[in-house]
Amino acid sequence: MNKAMQELRRLEKKLYALQYAQNVIEYDDATVAPPESYEGRGEAVAELSAFEHALMTGETLPRLLEEVKKEPLSEQEAAEVEELSRRYRRISCVPAEEYAEFSRLTTRAMSAWEKAKAASDFSLYQPYLEKIVAARRRFAALLDPDKAPYDVLLDQFEPGLTMETCDRFFGELREVITPLIRRITEEGKKPDTSFLRGPWSLAGQRKLSDRVMEVMGIDRAHCTIGESEHPFTTEFYKGDVRITTHYFEEDMASSFYSVVHEGGHALYELHIADRLMGTCLAGGVSMGLHESQSRLYENNIGRSLPFVRAVFPSIQEIFPEQLSGVTAEEFYKAVNVAEPSLIRTEADEVTYCLHIMVRYELEKQLIAGTLAVGDIPAEWNRLMKEYLGVEVPCDRVGCLQDVHWCSGDFGYFPSYALGTAYAAQIADAMRRDFDLDAAVERGELSAVSSWLAEKIWQYGKEKSPAWLIKNACGAPFDPHYYTDYLVKKYSEIYELD
Amino acid sequence: MNKAMQELRRLEKKLYALQYAQNVIEYDDATVAPPESYEGRGEAVAELSAFEHALMTGETLPRLLEEVKKEPLSEQEAAEVEELSRRYRRISCVPAEEYAEFSRLTTRAMSAWEKAKAASDFSLYQPYLEKIVAARRRFAALLDPDKAPYDVLLDQFEPGLTMETCDRFFGELREVITPLIRRITEEGKKPDTSFLRGPWSLAGQRKLSDRVMEVMGIDRAHCTIGESEHPFTTEFYKGDVRITTHYFEEDMASSFYSVVHEGGHALYELHIADRLMGTCLAGGVSMGLHESQSRLYENNIGRSLPFVRAVFPSIQEIFPEQLSGVTAEEFYKAVNVAEPSLIRTEADEVTYCLHIMVRYELEKQLIAGTLAVGDIPAEWNRLMKEYLGVEVPCDRVGCLQDVHWCSGDFGYFPSYALGTAYAAQIADAMRRDFDLDAAVERGELSAVSSWLAEKIWQYGKEKSPAWLIKNACGAPFDPHYYTDYLVKKYSEIYELD
Repeated sequence: MNKAMQELRRLEKKLYALQYAQNVIEYDDATVAPPESYEGRGEAVAELSAFEHALMTGETLPRLLEEVKKEPLSEQEAAEVEELSRRYRRISCVPAEEYAEFSRLTTRAMSAWEKAKAASDFSLYQPYLEKIVAARRRFAALLDPDKAPYDVLLDQFEPGLTMETCDRFFGELREVITPLIRRITEEGKKPDTSFLRGPWSLAGQRKLSDRVMEVMGIDRAHCTIGESEHPFTTEFYKGDVRITTHYFEEDMASSFYSVVHEGGHALYELHIADRLMGTCLAGGVSMGLHESQSRLYENNIGRSLPFVRAVFPSIQEIFPEQLSGVTAEEFYKAVNVAEPSLIRTEADEVTYCLHIMVRYELEKQLIAGTLAVGDIPAEWNRLMKEYLGVEVPCDRVGCLQDVHWCSGDFGYFPSYALGTAYAAQIADAMRRDFDLDAAVERGELSAVSSWLAEKIWQYGKEKSPAWLIKNACGAPFDPHYYTDYLVKKYSEIYELD
Repeated sequence: MNKAMQELRRLEKKLYALQYAQNVIEYDDATVAPPESYEGRGEAVAELSAFEHALMTGETLPRLLEEVKKEPLSEQEAAEVEELSRRYRRISCVPAEEYAEFSRLTTRAMSAWEKAKAASDFSLYQPYLEKIVAARRRFAALLDPDKAPYDVLLDQFEPGLTMETCDRFFGELREVITPLIRRITEEGKKPDTSFLRGPWSLAGQRKLSDRVMEVMGIDRAHCTIGESEHPFTTEFYKGDVRITTHYFEEDMASSFYSVVHEGGHALYELHIADRLMGTCLAGGVSMGLHESQSRLYENNIGRSLPFVRAVFPSIQEIFPEQLSGVTAEEFYKAVNVAEPSLIRTEADEVTYCLHIMVRYELEKQLIAGTLAVGDIPAEWNRLMKEYLGVEVPCDRVGCLQDVHWCSGDFGYFPSYALGTAYAAQIADAMRRDFDLDAAVERGELSAVSSWLAEKIWQYGKEKSPAWLIKNACGAPFDPHYYTDYLVKKYSEIYELD
């Protein structure tokens, strides 16, 4: 290995350690930290970020990135250099003081958003959001003045993603989903969900989480499950991944599918190749591709009849009282009810992407400068009515529901929808290689994980999302797999003819 | 504030953040980390230590320590400079390669010790321990060639402590404790402990932990309780302290008194003055003084009749079946049984310090070079017989029981005994200021914590242990408070006349 590359690896190790520390601190915060312990944590995290910032912007990194190219590099080394160069460009294009100012702004915005949401009063949040939008537009122009700013932002969450792709993708989706929802609502036979009401003991739900992780083949020696306000997955290292869930006494399906979803994220991280550990390529490649793995497990597998058939006996065993007279088929239909609603995170498979589209349309215009922040509430409500047919009674359950914009994460939402659509295409490719339904119904999910590990997981960030989709599916991304899947599945469940 | 001092403060903030990260990682490791996740953690911790080492040994710190003295300093600033100078001397006197080599050695020693303990075979551990003893002797000579090496080591855990003090202290202790144990064993009336056998539900014990923390006045918004193999306390920051405990189904007293003990450590950390936060003076001043606070709560208060009277109704309410016919007085006596035994961590108040003395005698000779590592087992067994009257059947429950020497912590053990003795003197001083027993029996432990916060806790590392003892007790350390306390308490419990 050439000398500059060796030095780069040492720098990557340092970045890894700082990221490790920050992830543990965040995980601790979300799971077991004392409720009023934010002060010391905030100071520590700020200092650790400063260490990271210093490493990324010091004179060493650009020098090494130049030197390293003078000698031949292996494929992995070249990918490392490219990833580091990308990160370097992104961080070094913003002057340090502006970077720090933006970080202070988002901290204040977070607390303003919390107050605004509690009071359902957008005006408390508006001045902060205006500054955030302005900063994001500016940073995008600094990073790449030749591209449309929103394309620059999309690329940060999903390398290669553009508005052109999104517009086509969401256009096709709307064309299929809107009439599908109308048919479901008007002609569909709504499944019985009365038996899902509970109450469901937390002890029973915890036991079910263990069972689900076992069926999914998640190695508990390397992955634990914690409890937090919102379920999430974090990886400290390949051999140390954590998922969390949230148990509700009145709703067991919520945690059940959170565990399947987060379990998908965890399996991805647990199967990245050893050779990438400690380098900047360890970790899932993009938000969209990560989400495709969690959605694949949650929806395409988890909410399929074969999977429900595989685990329903365990669920029934844990909750005999609530489920004695219920069949796997009835349970399957009940957890697949589709209904337009106000809150994205509670949306079903059919309506979910429409929630994303509302956000996409707003973001696109905000970043292009064609929509004023003050006009968000009215535009949000108009789009919710147009796409989902629902009236938004107040901003708390409308445009104030999501945290993402507080931290300046414009361009993030589309990756959720993209991941969902990737998942359908990946499931289809899998079916061409083996009998997915039969394997799942037998509880043999190792067939799924070996396939994904080979085609996608092992590569970490070494390959682009587009390369990985092509590698797994034999063709570039195509949204029709997703729309076909939705129409077929929901026509059956709702007995549409 | 002078400019060099401002720079020092910035450096202290960085050190704080690195320490914060390492403490969170350690806490996570001991409580919820997946069982086989050590690899990534080990690499991250090594990198974070390297950051810390670089900050402590770089050219900045010695330069600032020189510059800062050119202008007047406040009392706190002077204490910060002294503490940093002390740490700098300690770390910079050892060449970096030797430091790294020692760190690798202790990692290997730890795993050798685990194997040796499991097999009860000292020879597996001996070669590592020989190297550790040699390294510790060498480091002590590098740090201060004019002092006896073991005095140098004692001073690291308890600033100012010397062999002379220890010899006098332990001498006095032995003179009182040895005959006291003989009388307890030969003439004493042993309390009934049959009702302590359990089983005690873990859910009930968890509820009791909450109750104990409430009685102690521990603010749960800033202090949580976790579960780990061995109970411990760690502080990330003043407003973020964690204690842990270990529940045993067959022994509720173990966790009960662990919580009281760790709660004492936690209260100390929770009451350090705000002005010290983020500086090198945040945190308890020494091992001995820290232990004095936990022992004070555990023994002088927790194992007193007034405290048992205050909490026994709650214990009885949680465990009505096991304790229906038992009185507070009977419970008090049962948790104060004294009996010579093999294992230090399970020893009672009377015999505890004798376990420490065995280790002290061995350490003193090992570091002086008058005892060979190979002779430890025989000498251990001889001293256990002489001091405690017990026969050691094998090294697993003998000289292989403690982890401390693996990490080179020679000079640590005496601080446990010293803390225990400090506690008795502090309790005596408290009694002169207010009616301690009455306050405790009413469950008003805020009287205790306000007194300790004012006299000791607020100062963090700003004052020396000796200063703090004098400030709290009005006189220097004097072991007779401890021996008087033991004789009085145990004469009553065992009805000696």
